[in-house]
Amino acid sequence: MVAKAGKKIELVEKMLAGDRLSLARVISLIEDRGESLPKIVHEIYPKTGNAFVLGITGPPGAGKSTVTDKLVAEIRKTGKRAAVIAIDPSSPFSGGAILGDRIRMQSHSGDQGVYIRSLGTRGKHGGLSQSSKEVVMALDAAGFDWIIVETAGVGQTELDILKLAHAVCVVLVPESGDSIQVMKAGLMEIADLFVVNKCDRPEADKLVRELVNMVGMTEAAKNSWTIPVLKTQALFDQGIGELFGQIQAFRDFAIEHGAIEKKRAAFIEEEIIEIIWNQVVQEVRTKMDNAGGRKLLDQVLKKKKSPYEVADEFIS
Amino acid sequence: MVAKAGKKIELVEKMLAGDRLSLARVISLIEDRGESLPKIVHEIYPKTGNAFVLGITGPPGAGKSTVTDKLVAEIRKTGKRAAVIAIDPSSPFSGGAILGDRIRMQSHSGDQGVYIRSLGTRGKHGGLSQSSKEVVMALDAAGFDWIIVETAGVGQTELDILKLAHAVCVVLVPESGDSIQVMKAGLMEIADLFVVNKCDRPEADKLVRELVNMVGMTEAAKNSWTIPVLKTQALFDQGIGELFGQIQAFRDFAIEHGAIEKKRAAFIEEEIIEIIWNQVVQEVRTKMDNAGGRKLLDQVLKKKKSPYEVADEFIS
Repeated sequence: MVAKAGKKIELVEKMLAGDRLSLARVISLIEDRGESLPKIVHEIYPKTGNAFVLGITGPPGAGKSTVTDKLVAEIRKTGKRAAVIAIDPSSPFSGGAILGDRIRMQSHSGDQGVYIRSLGTRGKHGGLSQSSKEVVMALDAAGFDWIIVETAGVGQTELDILKLAHAVCVVLVPESGDSIQVMKAGLMEIADLFVVNKCDRPEADKLVRELVNMVGMTEAAKNSWTIPVLKTQALFDQGIGELFGQIQAFRDFAIEHGAIEKKRAAFIEEEIIEIIWNQVVQEVRTKMDNAGGRKLLDQVLKKKKSPYEVADEFIS
Repeated sequence: MVAKAGKKIELVEKMLAGDRLSLARVISLIEDRGESLPKIVHEIYPKTGNAFVLGITGPPGAGKSTVTDKLVAEIRKTGKRAAVIAIDPSSPFSGGAILGDRIRMQSHSGDQGVYIRSLGTRGKHGGLSQSSKEVVMALDAAGFDWIIVETAGVGQTELDILKLAHAVCVVLVPESGDSIQVMKAGLMEIADLFVVNKCDRPEADKLVRELVNMVGMTEAAKNSWTIPVLKTQALFDQGIGELFGQIQAFRDFAIEHGAIEKKRAAFIEEEIIEIIWNQVVQEVRTKMDNAGGRKLLDQVLKKKKSPYEVADEFIS
C-alpha cells in the first residue's frame, strides 16, 4: 500500500516537472475515478490557479475544432503554453473521427508547449463535469497557461462548460439555424464572445445582425462587458487574430472586475458538492444492494412506503 | 400547521376524485418543490402503477407535438384517458409559442379524458427529471391510462426520458440530418420505436433504410423486440393508427417479458437517490453559507486544503 501510494506521488511529481507521459497517466487516473483520485487531486491542487480556462462551444459542424486549432497557434505566438480538452462527441478531437484527430494533432505535434486530450463524453450523473474539472486542474498544475475546453453546445453540456470555464466563446455558422433556435434561450447566459465562423457563406451577415441585436437587448442585464460578435473563416486563418485579441480583452476585463476570483470560488463549491454527491450515491447504492436495502425497496414497490419515507431511512 | 396539512390532503383527495383544478394545483406544488412535497407524494404514490408512460423524443421540428396530438386521439378512440407532459423547450406545448399551445389544446378541449400540461425546462441539477417523475405519479394516480412525455432529444434530456418512460418513441424527419448525427450514438440506447415523420419529403426512404440498418446491427444486443421503423405524416393523420398499434404491441411485449416491472423498480431507485441528493445538497449548501463553512471554503481557495479533504469535513 505504502509503496503504491509512493508511486502515485512520484507520478504527480514527474507530471509537475513537465513529463508528458506522466501527465497523460494522471489524466487517465482522473478519468478512471479510482481510489487514488483524492490523493492525486490533493497533490495537484496546490499548484493550480495560474491557467486561464476558455470554453469553446456551439452546434456540431460550426468549426469549433478549427477555431480551437487556430487559437492554439495564436497562443503559441505569445510564447504561452496551451492545452486542449475536447469533450464534444462530434469533435474530431474526441469523437468517432480518429483520422481527423490525428490530422489535427499533427499541426502542433512535436510542440512541447501544446497538449491535446479528448475526454469520454458519457459519464455518470455529474461525472463528466467533475472529471473535466479535475483534468483542468492537472493541466493547470502542469504549467499550461491557456486551457481550451471544446464541447458541443447542446443540452446540458452548455451548462457544464459554465462550471469550469473562465470565458465562454460560442461558435456559430449561418447554416446552424435549427440548432441556434434550440440554443437561443441559453446562449446569452453562457456567451462572453460570439463567433460567426465560415462567414463567407450566405446569411452570415444576417446571423451577425441577429446576434448583435440579442446582445443589445440583454446588455443591461449583464455587467458592463459588451459581448463582441466576431466574424471568422477559421480554416483560412481569417479573423482569428482579432478573436484572440478580444478573448484577451475579456480575460483582462474579468480579472480586473474580480469575476475570475468569483468563478474560482464558485467552481470550488461545485467541485466539493460533486465529490460529496459521488460519495453519497455510492453509499446509497451499496445500501440498496444489501438485504436490508432490497427489503426497503420492495416495500416501496408494494406501495407500503413512499419514496420519501424510504429516502429518510437510507440516509439515517 | 395542522389545518394547512389537512388542506393539502384535501387537495390530493379531490384530485384523486377526478377534480382537474386540484390536479393542476398538485402539479404546481410538485413543480414548486416546497415543504409539502413529501406529504403529497406520500398520498399519491399508493394510487400509482396503472398508467403506461410513453416518451416521445426527437430533434426540434420533427413534429413530435403533432404525433403526440394524433396519438392522444387514437388513445381516446379506445376509451382510455390520456395525459401529456411537454418538457421540450421547442414544443408548442411548453415553449415560447403560446399561440401554438392554445391551438393544439383546442383539438382536445372540453374532453375530460385528456389533460395537457407543460413543465419548465430549466431545472436545478436533477430537478427536471425528478419533478417530471412526480408529475407522472400524480397523473397516474389521477387515473390517466396513458401518459405521454414529450421532450427534445438533445443532450441529457434523452437520458432523462429513460428515467420515467416505459416506452420511448423517437421521431425524426429527413431534414434533421445534423441533429441525427449528434443523436446517433445515443439513439439506439433509447428507442423502442422509430418514426420517420413528414415521410412525403425527399430523403425519407433513405432515412428509413438507414434506421432499419442501424436496428439490424444492434438487434442482437437488445432483447428480442425488433425496433420498428414507421413512416408517418402526422399532420394528415397518416400512419398514426399503425404507430399506435406498434406502441401497444411493444407495451404488451414489455409487460409479458417483465420489462415494465424492472423499469418500475429502477425508476423507484432513481427517485429515492434524487430525493437523497436534493436533501444532501441543501444541507451542504447551508453549511457552506455558515461561518464555519465559509472558513473551510476559504482554506480551499488559499490552497491550504484540497476539495476532497474539505468534502469529508462537510459530510462528517
